[in-house]
Amino acid sequence: MIIKLRSNAEQAQVEQLINWLEGQGIQLYFSEGDTYSIIGLVGDTSRVDIELIEALEIVESVTRIQEPFKNANRKFHPDDTVIHVGDATIGGGTLTLIAGPCSVENEAQITEVAQRVKAAGATILRGGAFKPRTSPYSFQGMGAEGIDLLLKAKAATGLPIISEVMDISQLPLFADVDILQIGARNMQNFNLLKEVGKMDKPVLLKRGLCATYEEWLMSAEYIMAGGNKNVILCERGIRTFETKTRNTLDISAVPMLRELTHLPIVIDPSHAAGIRRMVRPLSMAAVAAGADGLMIEVHNDPERAKCDGPQCLRPDTFDEVAADALKLHDFCKKELHQ
Amino acid sequence: MIIKLRSNAEQAQVEQLINWLEGQGIQLYFSEGDTYSIIGLVGDTSRVDIELIEALEIVESVTRIQEPFKNANRKFHPDDTVIHVGDATIGGGTLTLIAGPCSVENEAQITEVAQRVKAAGATILRGGAFKPRTSPYSFQGMGAEGIDLLLKAKAATGLPIISEVMDISQLPLFADVDILQIGARNMQNFNLLKEVGKMDKPVLLKRGLCATYEEWLMSAEYIMAGGNKNVILCERGIRTFETKTRNTLDISAVPMLRELTHLPIVIDPSHAAGIRRMVRPLSMAAVAAGADGLMIEVHNDPERAKCDGPQCLRPDTFDEVAADALKLHDFCKKELHQ
Amino acid sequence: MIIKLRSNAEQAQVEQLINWLEGQGIQLYFSEGDTYSIIGLVGDTSRVDIELIEALEIVESVTRIQEPFKNANRKFHPDDTVIHVGDATIGGGTLTLIAGPCSVENEAQITEVAQRVKAAGATILRGGAFKPRTSPYSFQGMGAEGIDLLLKAKAATGLPIISEVMDISQLPLFADVDILQIGARNMQNFNLLKEVGKMDKPVLLKRGLCATYEEWLMSAEYIMAGGNKNVILCERGIRTFETKTRNTLDISAVPMLRELTHLPIVIDPSHAAGIRRMVRPLSMAAVAAGADGLMIEVHNDPERAKCDGPQCLRPDTFDEVAADALKLHDFCKKELHQ
Amino acid sequence: MIIKLRSNAEQAQVEQLINWLEGQGIQLYFSEGDTYSIIGLVGDTSRVDIELIEALEIVESVTRIQEPFKNANRKFHPDDTVIHVGDATIGGGTLTLIAGPCSVENEAQITEVAQRVKAAGATILRGGAFKPRTSPYSFQGMGAEGIDLLLKAKAATGLPIISEVMDISQLPLFADVDILQIGARNMQNFNLLKEVGKMDKPVLLKRGLCATYEEWLMSAEYIMAGGNKNVILCERGIRTFETKTRNTLDISAVPMLRELTHLPIVIDPSHAAGIRRMVRPLSMAAVAAGADGLMIEVHNDPERAKCDGPQCLRPDTFDEVAADALKLHDFCKKELHQ
Repeated sequence: MIIKLRSNAEQAQVEQLINWLEGQGIQLYFSEGDTYSIIGLVGDTSRVDIELIEALEIVESVTRIQEPFKNANRKFHPDDTVIHVGDATIGGGTLTLIAGPCSVENEAQITEVAQRVKAAGATILRGGAFKPRTSPYSFQGMGAEGIDLLLKAKAATGLPIISEVMDISQLPLFADVDILQIGARNMQNFNLLKEVGKMDKPVLLKRGLCATYEEWLMSAEYIMAGGNKNVILCERGIRTFETKTRNTLDISAVPMLRELTHLPIVIDPSHAAGIRRMVRPLSMAAVAAGADGLMIEVHNDPERAKCDGPQCLRPDTFDEVAADALKLHDFCKKELHQ
Repeated sequence: MIIKLRSNAEQAQVEQLINWLEGQGIQLYFSEGDTYSIIGLVGDTSRVDIELIEALEIVESVTRIQEPFKNANRKFHPDDTVIHVGDATIGGGTLTLIAGPCSVENEAQITEVAQRVKAAGATILRGGAFKPRTSPYSFQGMGAEGIDLLLKAKAATGLPIISEVMDISQLPLFADVDILQIGARNMQNFNLLKEVGKMDKPVLLKRGLCATYEEWLMSAEYIMAGGNKNVILCERGIRTFETKTRNTLDISAVPMLRELTHLPIVIDPSHAAGIRRMVRPLSMAAVAAGADGLMIEVHNDPERAKCDGPQCLRPDTFDEVAADALKLHDFCKKELHQ
Repeated sequence: MIIKLRSNAEQAQVEQLINWLEGQGIQLYFSEGDTYSIIGLVGDTSRVDIELIEALEIVESVTRIQEPFKNANRKFHPDDTVIHVGDATIGGGTLTLIAGPCSVENEAQITEVAQRVKAAGATILRGGAFKPRTSPYSFQGMGAEGIDLLLKAKAATGLPIISEVMDISQLPLFADVDILQIGARNMQNFNLLKEVGKMDKPVLLKRGLCATYEEWLMSAEYIMAGGNKNVILCERGIRTFETKTRNTLDISAVPMLRELTHLPIVIDPSHAAGIRRMVRPLSMAAVAAGADGLMIEVHNDPERAKCDGPQCLRPDTFDEVAADALKLHDFCKKELHQ
Repeated sequence: MIIKLRSNAEQAQVEQLINWLEGQGIQLYFSEGDTYSIIGLVGDTSRVDIELIEALEIVESVTRIQEPFKNANRKFHPDDTVIHVGDATIGGGTLTLIAGPCSVENEAQITEVAQRVKAAGATILRGGAFKPRTSPYSFQGMGAEGIDLLLKAKAATGLPIISEVMDISQLPLFADVDILQIGARNMQNFNLLKEVGKMDKPVLLKRGLCATYEEWLMSAEYIMAGGNKNVILCERGIRTFETKTRNTLDISAVPMLRELTHLPIVIDPSHAAGIRRMVRPLSMAAVAAGADGLMIEVHNDPERAKCDGPQCLRPDTFDEVAADALKLHDFCKKELHQ
């Protein structure tokens, strides 16, 4: 951490700051220039509250040199985190396919889709019971009943299931759900993050619409600081000025997060574009960029889907996309330089 | 709502769509061009789920002409909403000053600040007990104890109080808090919005960092649809590419929201810039633009504040800013064209 | 185009508007609702100035349904544009590799790099003579001498060359340059666009940092409206809130532009990330998403490059990336569903 | 400038870097930590090319502590720049009103508007002859003839004039134009900036749609580095996700630029919102925030304006806005704390 002092900083106040920092066991170094002076902090500064220092009148600016996340940081945990749920594995060189409808609608629908995506190569079933919708007048999901139907589809196919939890009060309903999903709009719902941090269930944490990698990893850090180390990061498109696509897939997240963190990285091409016919090219791009998995919306009858119909694949199309993704992943591993 | 059909749309499917729409009691009109055809929907379309239509293969795009919010819409409620809490009034031509520390730290602090801001002209006391922080390692607020201290300051000064609620489970603690604040990161925490929508306490809803006016008003609509019509909108800066300020105050929100909605609009210049010495000019800009109120962070000892120190005003400075804001508001009302 | 009238619009003025539109040979249709009325325009509205209509007091809003670009629009030109320069082909199913240093520095450098990238499979040589730099104190390129050296490298290798033109006054120097590059910061330098529109040389048009697809295609339209139909679109990363990468590669541009336009689409992974070790994964993603080409910065000694050193590949690394890109392109065409 | 070295940096290469930096006369300081080491640069680093250092394999990141602009920096030029053109003054505590139509259309129009805005208190006349338009099919301005008409209006009223120059080749036509305007889309047209930097005419430099303050000031630096110190900064709205307004006025630019630079700051509320009825509140906000001037579009017949009609004020409305702005400026100076 680098503290730039104002040129007119009073010496007495500067000494007070130095004493306070040294009192916290932090090593310092100093540099005085013509137009400004600097205090550098050495060692672990992840617990130093940057705002407390910025608040001082003698300080012009504070720059962090070290990342503020520790548990999620690859520097301190060089090995990839690999997560196992049922027969599925996420991370560590495999390509995991997660698929299913946006929302659970009835038993026939979820079971049929589960069987189809399993046959196509998916190893985890997704399905929403609680749906975050911009409008209070839109379909809000089946709730507890949706979870029940998802569990029936799990029983019928053996696939582990993932579903979105929107509020702490819903957690008891998720006892038999294999992976908890935290949605983009809840990425900084810190109370929810703390609560799932106390559990030992894997958590798939979606990136917020305007979140930076660092903010996203700090949200992962909230979960991990509570003891739960099984976090999966899911890039689902960020907001940009482009309106032809619902969001903009940030494909660079794959290689960049690979350096910053040891956590697995999954791409959601369905929400990223919001357009059915873009799921295929974005999936291929994600695999070629090195993603650990894909999460794809599949519906047996997209034109009658209660939500996200425009981005759902039909099972037939998913068959092709899944087969291509797995073939491409194999080709990249075997035939290309890494 | 305007539905643009694909040029190769099958007639049978188009008729199916028409029947389905007419079945919902919606009036339609048609236009056929050389390169595309259009179906227009007349009347109240706020409950038509745009995604259901976009999902159809025969549809190229759907454009909403009418705003999707009703309760918050000035078109249907031309008169300003005016909210009364204790002796304070928000909306309807007055300028309301809300002030206090970012977080409650101890009884002496909150009481002293309360007395100072009251003397300066503030009519509502703010103070955080539960603090949303990006890092799990930063101070998270005093919690229940903070609410207790806030209530003591209320008892000592007679000022109604506002504090942020972060999760449904905290609501019982807020029984005697006068105004509930929903923070920027919770603007789309739909479960929390629904829950406060069932209460009759005023809610100050902060705009999300990247939210559009429409998304913000849809969140207000969530609260209002539940029956609670006492919503106050608070602009606190949006995220832009500029990094010299913490956020960018969107001053245009004041006149634009005035047209779109009847709800009062408050500006938070402290969070907008994140810099103490910018609170004054941004406050004056907000008053001149016609804001209904200002929410300003004041701390008796900003350099030792446990959070947001860089943006807190000292009580002496707040005296000046408050006096100037009230004088300016008076001048604008009496001397300028409206 | 859909015109939404204000609810209090005077009938006389509405009729004036109708007469004026019909006078331009535009067919109209009407819809009257309880809260608003609509006038729809049928046929080619690409030459109707939307602002002239928005300016009217009786108009609440105007929505364009049809794309405002014609020459670049796939609807009117269903076949892919394929561009030939020397032995190179851009578009139509091939993968074209464009490579070379950010800036030309001396004859040995540009010739050595040219030979290396040719050997690796590149068919077009890039090299900057005029460099747009944020700071007036940074290296601004060799200018005319740089073009001369580039021509020597062309003579030595037979590779056609591409270089950036920043101003109309430089155009005479580009007589023997095969492809003109318009940089991101000049995407809306309309005078320059008009001038290259009068030439018959291919133009590679980079996307502006914050430009939408539509704005980008309108800039292509400027060139094409002048008669020059040989436009290549180059996505080079857009500005987002993420700071770990210089820009954010918008990989969705590939499939989305494929629908909107018939022009070839090239990806520049070097500028997109600004980081050498991200060029490989982003290149593979671009190929898998269906890009027509890659433009990659290669330098024989990146640590001494006069600009963009952090993102230049060494020739050895480019050998691998080029080989992998070509193999992957081949695999995707032959083995995957399209 | 702070250089963070990679943990595995080879000592020989680090020493090479140190020698190279010291060879440029830069003083260094060092700090070694457990997980990373740092080299700090002291003194004037505005001419050090940050990319040359970032390109080194041993370097993890480089952070600039000092601003990269010098001529525009208030630290080195504490006194406000005050610019005089004709009888008008810009900067130094006055409020300057610049007004006129978006584009010059004919002699009667520009002369009538000039007389009206002069009577209302404007001291500079604006009018566009060359118009940057997104579409090649929109009105592109009258060109040379427009400049002639502007000069006639200047002769008739005595008002100095400002007009936008889009390309170097147009500069000879601007010999008698008092202030050159560089538009938002040309903020980084570096050749044009260099060329106007050689002249001694004041230049009004508009902020780019997505530019940061630093990039904007670096563009001012381009002009000033050439010798022309008469630069006026004009904030005209930035691009955000909000679509109800054309752009978003960044009102914080006024107080923040006041700290960073000594150059005068003018607000353009017409382009910022793109909506006529928002010009008044945004103008008042700008004055209250401390702007040096307002640039407002006024047209005698906005409904027939050839461009930007939706945002033009009628002369009658401008009378009120101008009177209010001047009264408010006076009130703020005399009655409020500064």
